[in-house]
Amino acid sequence: MNQPDQDHADSRPRIKPTTLKGFRDYLPGPMLAREQLIDTARSVYRSYGFSPIDTPSLEYSEILLGKGGDESDKQLFRFTDQGNRDVAMRFDLTIPLARYAAQHLQEIGTPFKRYHVGTVWRAEKPQKGRYREFIQCDFDTIGTTSNTSDIETLFVIHDLMEQIGFQSFSIRVNNRRLLNGLLETLDLTEQATGVLRTLDKLAKIGREQVADEMQQVVGLSSEQAAGVLALTDCQGTAEEMLESLAPRLANSETGTEGLARLGELFAACRTAGISSDRVQLDTAIARGLDYYTGTIYETYLDDLPEIGSVCSGGRYDDLAQLFTAQPLPGVGASLGLDRLLAAMEELGMVEATATAAPVLLTHFDAGHTADYLATARRLRAAGVSCEVFPDSRPLGKQLKYADRKGFRLVIIAGVDEFAGGTWQVKDLASGQQHEVSDEELVETIEARLAEISE
Amino acid sequence: MNQPDQDHADSRPRIKPTTLKGFRDYLPGPMLAREQLIDTARSVYRSYGFSPIDTPSLEYSEILLGKGGDESDKQLFRFTDQGNRDVAMRFDLTIPLARYAAQHLQEIGTPFKRYHVGTVWRAEKPQKGRYREFIQCDFDTIGTTSNTSDIETLFVIHDLMEQIGFQSFSIRVNNRRLLNGLLETLDLTEQATGVLRTLDKLAKIGREQVADEMQQVVGLSSEQAAGVLALTDCQGTAEEMLESLAPRLANSETGTEGLARLGELFAACRTAGISSDRVQLDTAIARGLDYYTGTIYETYLDDLPEIGSVCSGGRYDDLAQLFTAQPLPGVGASLGLDRLLAAMEELGMVEATATAAPVLLTHFDAGHTADYLATARRLRAAGVSCEVFPDSRPLGKQLKYADRKGFRLVIIAGVDEFAGGTWQVKDLASGQQHEVSDEELVETIEARLAEISE
Repeated sequence: MNQPDQDHADSRPRIKPTTLKGFRDYLPGPMLAREQLIDTARSVYRSYGFSPIDTPSLEYSEILLGKGGDESDKQLFRFTDQGNRDVAMRFDLTIPLARYAAQHLQEIGTPFKRYHVGTVWRAEKPQKGRYREFIQCDFDTIGTTSNTSDIETLFVIHDLMEQIGFQSFSIRVNNRRLLNGLLETLDLTEQATGVLRTLDKLAKIGREQVADEMQQVVGLSSEQAAGVLALTDCQGTAEEMLESLAPRLANSETGTEGLARLGELFAACRTAGISSDRVQLDTAIARGLDYYTGTIYETYLDDLPEIGSVCSGGRYDDLAQLFTAQPLPGVGASLGLDRLLAAMEELGMVEATATAAPVLLTHFDAGHTADYLATARRLRAAGVSCEVFPDSRPLGKQLKYADRKGFRLVIIAGVDEFAGGTWQVKDLASGQQHEVSDEELVETIEARLAEISE
Repeated sequence: MNQPDQDHADSRPRIKPTTLKGFRDYLPGPMLAREQLIDTARSVYRSYGFSPIDTPSLEYSEILLGKGGDESDKQLFRFTDQGNRDVAMRFDLTIPLARYAAQHLQEIGTPFKRYHVGTVWRAEKPQKGRYREFIQCDFDTIGTTSNTSDIETLFVIHDLMEQIGFQSFSIRVNNRRLLNGLLETLDLTEQATGVLRTLDKLAKIGREQVADEMQQVVGLSSEQAAGVLALTDCQGTAEEMLESLAPRLANSETGTEGLARLGELFAACRTAGISSDRVQLDTAIARGLDYYTGTIYETYLDDLPEIGSVCSGGRYDDLAQLFTAQPLPGVGASLGLDRLLAAMEELGMVEATATAAPVLLTHFDAGHTADYLATARRLRAAGVSCEVFPDSRPLGKQLKYADRKGFRLVIIAGVDEFAGGTWQVKDLASGQQHEVSDEELVETIEARLAEISE
């Protein structure tokens, strides 16, 4: 089975080193890419005034149960702890935020803007690219219904994608009020959930199948189905689309408000100089969750649309109603870290290196260990990360190590160099090697690294 | 009991928002301090060529059991998962590293230098400053016995403390071989564990009680106890102490090697210009764990010695012997994040702010939302983090928000300012307010922030 085996090949029993199904180790290369992505996200979040928080990995099961539906309950890692408490590992960062906001409302006040980078666990059936442990990277503004926060959420997503290094991406925006307004005018408010769930499949299964499903599964007439789908017919710029929808929604307060909020959002994009290629109105996206009540966001990579949305979110009326009587409206989104990393790898955006230090200082003369170490410190003091090879080994072996790890420059000194007060500097990409004096070493290395990174 | 209560004050049942005993939420202020500390540690580790890795939070129980003694087994959060596997949450990052190194040895190769910042769980009795969930922040070099790595480990600890912002700290260094050599010459090798465990209490309980305990608990004669304690009598610089110990250890190969390695370490400190105030030989520290076999490190804050060591570690002969036949010697240390944060707070090193953004842009005119947002983007493009208040509220309310969160500068514009193309910039510390033109806004803010941070 999946239990580790005892290995009796040696004299003492050994435990087979293995990870659990659906869990994984990170080797240095992928981990460097993950750290960089998280750093970028944090720096964008911070630049908008979002502050970090953290919550425990374990919560009372009662806090988590029933919040994500039956499926999510079944996927909980849930157990009884030493104190006989019924506990579970968090499956997302939204329920913990709701609990946190309700519990600390007096201290944190509103508006409250937080980001949260944290591990979550779901005992899903493992499949390619899906793990039972993964990191979520969320940001939310709670305690305000202001459209300013909806617009800012869009800007954050835009800046995130740009800072990560994507040039071509589409943030698709919609507003649930626009959809709800339409359903009102079509007298379909009661069927809203079924209709929106079906509409959400438009990109995947196409117009005809959506119309079929609306009739056969949700129970709409063919006119009603056509009425819903007509919403997705409008063409042109976001402004033109909104204008063409206005007459149809004129009698619905909800729909009109949706139009107004979207109008303000697209106007703010213009004022901020954000390209209309990157932010599009998509009247067909609904996002399955009942949870959302206003603006909705999905983000697609133009070069890899098939991987799905890499950053999604929306506005909700009340985050914490299960925990407090005080209404806490909010808006936010979640960056799909694993998807993004997979996409970046596929698009060749991840450097193939297993070291964060660009320079390796080789080691030949155990009598000069202190000099090697002191030289590395001089480089670090100038901001250059530098590793010292720990053992005196043949040059070939140390160069092979440097190559495998992805170092850029190798610094070499043996007996001759120490006698002459010089160093050899080897560029691993070009293979070129130059002799430099000890005095010039730091500035030479700085200059070479600056050239390489250009 | 500790179960959350149902609150029936409202019409719908509510779950009381509460965290588990021994677990805690992080509010933005402490979380900002934690993120900064981790960033500093990561940047020092990286500057030496350590690369990040990660391992799963959950492991097969068999991997973790029996590695930290009975006490540690009892503290495991252990349960049976949906696939009927016996699993547990990791209680440290060392056992997972051992499993990881054994499992991925071919891919990672040696020497292998990794850092790992990760959450660990121990169902300890909660007490002041001790939690059941905490973060460890370890670095290790494995696959080499070279003293270069021992010296480098010391340098890393030194740079960590300095970069975090401490001026006065003492890294106390010893070598188990020196202790073992002495025990050899005193014919006490068999009693080593008991003797070293008692010796480790010297700073806490004093010389006389240590001598008593060595006789009464470990079973030494009074001469033997005096012989062990004589080791701690030597005075002077590290070099003088090592010199005075040399004759006594001349007949012990182990002891002589310990002396030689320590001698090389202190010489390297001199070459690197590291103050002898900061690195001291302390022949009385043994560190309880049987695990260590060579150099040992402990780090004390001169202003708060009573909180204990904030960064400890040492050299071990074989990390992964439970998982692989290949010997994996190594050396490393662990930064005590929680202790350090508590100390920094006590020493006034933590800024009282709940925002990473220094600038708040207030909001008065809903008709100018797009302008507020676009202005904030101009600041961000210049590298200035800036939050926009989401709602049009009275100035007093927005200033109170700015004060509470710890913003430095507030930018204000209402109808008059928009008409005149100007902004008001208010410095929250001084209370001074100046009018600046829209063109000069970004550079004025940059200049003011530069002044403030000086």
